[in-house]
Amino acid sequence: MFESLEQLKTYEAGKPIELVVREYGIKPQNIIKLASNENPYGPSPKVIEKVRKNATLMHRYPDDSFYELKEGLSKKFDIKSENIIIGAGSDQVLEFAIHGIKPKKVLMAGITFAMYEIFSKQVGAEILKTPSKTHNLEEFYEIYKKEKPEIIFLCIPNNPLGECLNSNEVFDFIEKIDEETLIIIDGAYQEFASFKDKNKEIKPKDILKYKNVLYTGTFSKAYGLGGMRVGYGIANEFIIKNLHKLRPPFNISILSLIASIESLKDKDWVRMGIENNFKEMQKYIDFANENNLEYIESFTNFIVLYINNSTKVANELLKKGIIIRDMASYGFSAIRITIGKPSENDILLKNLRELIEL
Amino acid sequence: MFESLEQLKTYEAGKPIELVVREYGIKPQNIIKLASNENPYGPSPKVIEKVRKNATLMHRYPDDSFYELKEGLSKKFDIKSENIIIGAGSDQVLEFAIHGIKPKKVLMAGITFAMYEIFSKQVGAEILKTPSKTHNLEEFYEIYKKEKPEIIFLCIPNNPLGECLNSNEVFDFIEKIDEETLIIIDGAYQEFASFKDKNKEIKPKDILKYKNVLYTGTFSKAYGLGGMRVGYGIANEFIIKNLHKLRPPFNISILSLIASIESLKDKDWVRMGIENNFKEMQKYIDFANENNLEYIESFTNFIVLYINNSTKVANELLKKGIIIRDMASYGFSAIRITIGKPSENDILLKNLRELIEL
Repeated sequence: MFESLEQLKTYEAGKPIELVVREYGIKPQNIIKLASNENPYGPSPKVIEKVRKNATLMHRYPDDSFYELKEGLSKKFDIKSENIIIGAGSDQVLEFAIHGIKPKKVLMAGITFAMYEIFSKQVGAEILKTPSKTHNLEEFYEIYKKEKPEIIFLCIPNNPLGECLNSNEVFDFIEKIDEETLIIIDGAYQEFASFKDKNKEIKPKDILKYKNVLYTGTFSKAYGLGGMRVGYGIANEFIIKNLHKLRPPFNISILSLIASIESLKDKDWVRMGIENNFKEMQKYIDFANENNLEYIESFTNFIVLYINNSTKVANELLKKGIIIRDMASYGFSAIRITIGKPSENDILLKNLRELIEL
Repeated sequence: MFESLEQLKTYEAGKPIELVVREYGIKPQNIIKLASNENPYGPSPKVIEKVRKNATLMHRYPDDSFYELKEGLSKKFDIKSENIIIGAGSDQVLEFAIHGIKPKKVLMAGITFAMYEIFSKQVGAEILKTPSKTHNLEEFYEIYKKEKPEIIFLCIPNNPLGECLNSNEVFDFIEKIDEETLIIIDGAYQEFASFKDKNKEIKPKDILKYKNVLYTGTFSKAYGLGGMRVGYGIANEFIIKNLHKLRPPFNISILSLIASIESLKDKDWVRMGIENNFKEMQKYIDFANENNLEYIESFTNFIVLYINNSTKVANELLKKGIIIRDMASYGFSAIRITIGKPSENDILLKNLRELIEL
């Protein structure tokens, strides 16, 4: 009865703290989790306060039009509510697009966000990847011309590697693609990239004139609400109207709605998190340089360090209650570390130094 | 680019409080919402406390294995974790099943939960409905024999009408259906039905022996967590394993996870809500009898009253800030009222009496 799913595998998320507690018997308060690109500062204290006040509303369904949240996003991006759809994380917006188009072929970077492939396989699409791990638009264009995929994914900046295309390159690329192919620009980490380098900034407003471009964003990273599952898609009204046909009612929780609305208001908090992120990232760059380790320049809240025996290193860290992401499953020896709070980074680097010197 | 979606319409949820506030200028605290079958008592105070305490964790992704929640459900139903999948509301479990099977034909009662039809249309299925509005298993079987639908939906008790099949009838029916057809038993209101009448109780444990039966349940109704979007599916391991292939990671929020785990612990609170529900429902039955109105005997937390000019009645109530569900869109003149708190029911009945006497 599920014949069409035979080829599918289930997604394995990063190890949660609960699992390390259960498997290694380490106390939750002693675990350092730098594996899932969570914002170590969390959301604004005003968001926490607002959620606490409204915890009495959990039996009430949220306003399914998401009126106030869309108003907030409209203001942030200088666009109309009609250009916005809300998803349970930006993942769900990707799911609507992929399930709605049912592509025969999709195109993405050699290593990029895992959900592109997972959702595409669910509708039986062939997965095309560029030979390069990171985004190379010439390779994208060559494959596009030959294969005419119905969807092209651009992750800007790219998760899990951290590199970032320049926005002018992206717009030049868009101009060369026929309107029959949807280009999805995944901007989950755009707040970080555009802070570090204005040349990386993609303004969602600028993609509205294209009939075939969908921008996705999230509250999971810069806004510190990863656990609340709120994201959004921005595109012209035709695309948004169609994506809404696949949106189930009440697809985010009432507290997720309240938290995301409130989080848009505290811009200083968001800025603080991003500033600290890049200040702390420098520690990892210094560490890499001191130890002659290669790394990928990152425009996100994580960094990829090339390291020998990455699986062994990741396992040794795990035994000490430090959770990072081993990149071996992507076919190369490296680790991906989420930039944590100062003390977390210091402990991780101390342990990493010891492991390298062994 | 979205050709396959052309026939689809978007779902219209019941009017949220926010909309009435915006449209009629009525203060939120003066609005009585008895339209969406929310639990008027909300979740246990212990759940609210627990969520408040853990509001600092909103940046953390939940344990994607949902280990503790599944343990809680395993205990409640005397089954194994491997027989459980967690969804963002039981709606999402329905979505996994329908999208995973991609049925050509599905069969359901004349009037039943709207999402069966919506999800089925998304995969292009033909919708077959029994001539009777309420569940009539003879009609189901006649159509089944002729049409061999890949999915049969049984809503026990039925939303939005409130009637409920006896469990022995249901199991007799299951025995007659080939294993190629999935039978989905939607038990969203089972806690209410089995409290009122033991003959209505469907134990999820008893369906595990069938290769083609999926039971769905929810925290939205008896547990008072409608806004938090947590539901579950229970079936044999083969079905559950396949449904997991379509489950996106982190499909419920971290606070939803924490709230649902905690809510399972306070059985007294859940019982109090159900007891009060049926005590208060009696007021509506008395009202119907006094005014010679027909009603459908309900095994849920709502009741359907036949009433002339239901649309006019619903609109008049709305102007006074009372939100109920007009059934006119289902093709008959009736209103569906969620059983509220005593004072809410009294105000609604007072207003309804005045409207009827006009």
